[in-house]
Amino acid sequence: MKAEIIAVGSEMLTPFRQDTNSLYLTEKLNGIGVAVAFKTIVGDRRKDLVDAIRFALGRTDIVAIMGGLGPTEDDMTREAVAEALSLTLSRDADLLATLKARAVAWHRAMPSNFVKQADVIESATILPNLNGSAPGQWLDTTFADHRKLVFLVPGPPSECRPLFDAECLPRLRAAVPVRHIAKRTLHAAMILEAEADSLLAPTYTTYTDVETTILAKPGEIQLTLLCAKPNLEAAQQRVDELAGRLEEILEDWLYSSGGESSESLEQIVLYYLGLRGATLAVAESCTGGMIAQRITQVPGSSRSFLGGAVVYSNEMKTTLAGVPPELIARHGAVSREVAEALAAGIRRRAGATFGLGVTGIAGPAGGSEAKPIGLVHIAISDAQKTESIERVFPGDRDRIRLLATQQALDLIRRRLR
Amino acid sequence: MKAEIIAVGSEMLTPFRQDTNSLYLTEKLNGIGVAVAFKTIVGDRRKDLVDAIRFALGRTDIVAIMGGLGPTEDDMTREAVAEALSLTLSRDADLLATLKARAVAWHRAMPSNFVKQADVIESATILPNLNGSAPGQWLDTTFADHRKLVFLVPGPPSECRPLFDAECLPRLRAAVPVRHIAKRTLHAAMILEAEADSLLAPTYTTYTDVETTILAKPGEIQLTLLCAKPNLEAAQQRVDELAGRLEEILEDWLYSSGGESSESLEQIVLYYLGLRGATLAVAESCTGGMIAQRITQVPGSSRSFLGGAVVYSNEMKTTLAGVPPELIARHGAVSREVAEALAAGIRRRAGATFGLGVTGIAGPAGGSEAKPIGLVHIAISDAQKTESIERVFPGDRDRIRLLATQQALDLIRRRLR
Repeated sequence: MKAEIIAVGSEMLTPFRQDTNSLYLTEKLNGIGVAVAFKTIVGDRRKDLVDAIRFALGRTDIVAIMGGLGPTEDDMTREAVAEALSLTLSRDADLLATLKARAVAWHRAMPSNFVKQADVIESATILPNLNGSAPGQWLDTTFADHRKLVFLVPGPPSECRPLFDAECLPRLRAAVPVRHIAKRTLHAAMILEAEADSLLAPTYTTYTDVETTILAKPGEIQLTLLCAKPNLEAAQQRVDELAGRLEEILEDWLYSSGGESSESLEQIVLYYLGLRGATLAVAESCTGGMIAQRITQVPGSSRSFLGGAVVYSNEMKTTLAGVPPELIARHGAVSREVAEALAAGIRRRAGATFGLGVTGIAGPAGGSEAKPIGLVHIAISDAQKTESIERVFPGDRDRIRLLATQQALDLIRRRLR
Repeated sequence: MKAEIIAVGSEMLTPFRQDTNSLYLTEKLNGIGVAVAFKTIVGDRRKDLVDAIRFALGRTDIVAIMGGLGPTEDDMTREAVAEALSLTLSRDADLLATLKARAVAWHRAMPSNFVKQADVIESATILPNLNGSAPGQWLDTTFADHRKLVFLVPGPPSECRPLFDAECLPRLRAAVPVRHIAKRTLHAAMILEAEADSLLAPTYTTYTDVETTILAKPGEIQLTLLCAKPNLEAAQQRVDELAGRLEEILEDWLYSSGGESSESLEQIVLYYLGLRGATLAVAESCTGGMIAQRITQVPGSSRSFLGGAVVYSNEMKTTLAGVPPELIARHGAVSREVAEALAAGIRRRAGATFGLGVTGIAGPAGGSEAKPIGLVHIAISDAQKTESIERVFPGDRDRIRLLATQQALDLIRRRLR
């Protein structure tokens, strides 16, 4: 079954506020085998809201409507749902009494507009709200001759989420066929999305019961495999089988197939360093501290990461990482030779197992024909040898720095595997 | 005129990923007097996408479609827009050549599915994408006898936002009726939102024709003042008048009242350094490179920023910043004395006008009763003197690192003013 989540409120159509309840509801809906097919954010205009609800009823089986249940003039979700479904709206005497009692308990007179919170849509079940005044409503109804489950929940997260869990989720679980969802997430570094997809699509498209999503970030792709079945083991088996085949295809590109979507390249690098009892130090020019910053973001990174040098000026390359000034004069600061001297130099200074050196031109200025913007040299050094790679990354300053950082982390990952 | 923003991608219908581009676009659209009336998030299913685009065309004048322009099988925004508008799609030879040249520059063969990125909708203008392979498309067309502006931009924020600014915004500005909106953004560092609001609300609430929004980030608040009037000068005058009063109240907290919402503390620090012809070097422990990373993010930062040391281990504090081992043994790595030695040491080593030293406990482990998690010492040193401050920041590792970075940048800003 497919669901649509409608978030009601003009504030969520400003640059400053975003709906977050839908992430919570999505996780819970996925957990009972319901996919969220659409999310709509609509302002406090009755006609817009009625239209949005009708669209949702026309394209999904379950419609979750969040917000617009309060007492103000802006709150018109009840009216809009009734209109969209051609149902009447009437004031519930018991609910009115509850609202009045609540106002008394708060030692307040009930504001006159409070009463509209006692309006109930024809055939709806009232869903008690323990954390606020506006109750939710549940409808098991029909639209264009199809069965539709529609529920209205309040917008504030502290009301929406407990009410959804207590009142909506059990009703949904009883109404939808039992499904179990298995999930797995794979991560690969420095492979283009298009390249990955052309390698992987012939395989994953044959698993029609597994939904495969590719997500791309600079220098990284994330593959999410989802499978829903009546039996969890069967779903997990399909996901694991596909994951195994994709892992084989991705080979060295793959850096994690554990499952947590938050697993990062720097976590993997630290994991490998820890396994080996090895330490790392970095000397960064164009990435300006980004490699160190990413590594030290991970709690406990101090066990394997000794530190680094951000060597923006030529003098700093010499002072902090011992790069001979003649070398810079001969080859230029952005060169294979200087990258290797940075890696070897910082390793020696820090007494680390591995040294990483990065130098490049992030732009927007400083490029030439021989050394264009985006040119980056990355070197890795240990007691045995120093090696380096050269890349020309596309994009603006931010992107070049991100890609250089990602490439440097991937280089050390591949060395450590 | 009203706009709808459609974000395309199944990943944004999971509990893990949310559209954020729409906040950026909303701000820019509001700035030219266009309100966002709906936002729709739709997955990578062609029929759903076509329906969503048709709904949008039926209810708004401007339809912004983000995502689904890549080369994978999932990417079908071009096809869906063409279908929704009953237009044809054809492969553009020039675009194909550009894509091929791009693959060559990456030293890669062009994957076969790459070519679909050269498909152009009938009557569309191609919008060049400087940060990725998929170009945008712009359509000034009709739907049900009404004029509609439709544009397709890539999903990744690093591609979406610059492309929107460079290609879509000028075209929209030329197409929508002129409304005069005056805007001003003030930034203040290291003041709590609640504190700022209690100081400022008595003033800004009296300006009922100016919309004042306070946005809080770790260690920073941003005040946006918006005023729409038939006459731009009158609107600007009201905004400037209120800004002047708020500036007086914020005093030293204020670090920028220029107007651009992207103005950052590191930009201000670099601006002041440039004015003085001064240079800066940093030695960071708990912030792990974040200060250097933020400063070097700014193009041209190499004029004033010499570099820095990320001194995670005690030995690195000595090797790279010349902190005497006895000092660390006597006072501990997280101490006023070590922060000051880091600042003075890195200044001397780098030959900089100013040295900044940061040491602290970011957690989650490593805290004690005397030195709790969140304790940070920050020192600044020049030829005359070395001074330091001590703070205990609340929150988790990320938040403590962010706040320490922000505080360090604010310390150098206040010294430079």
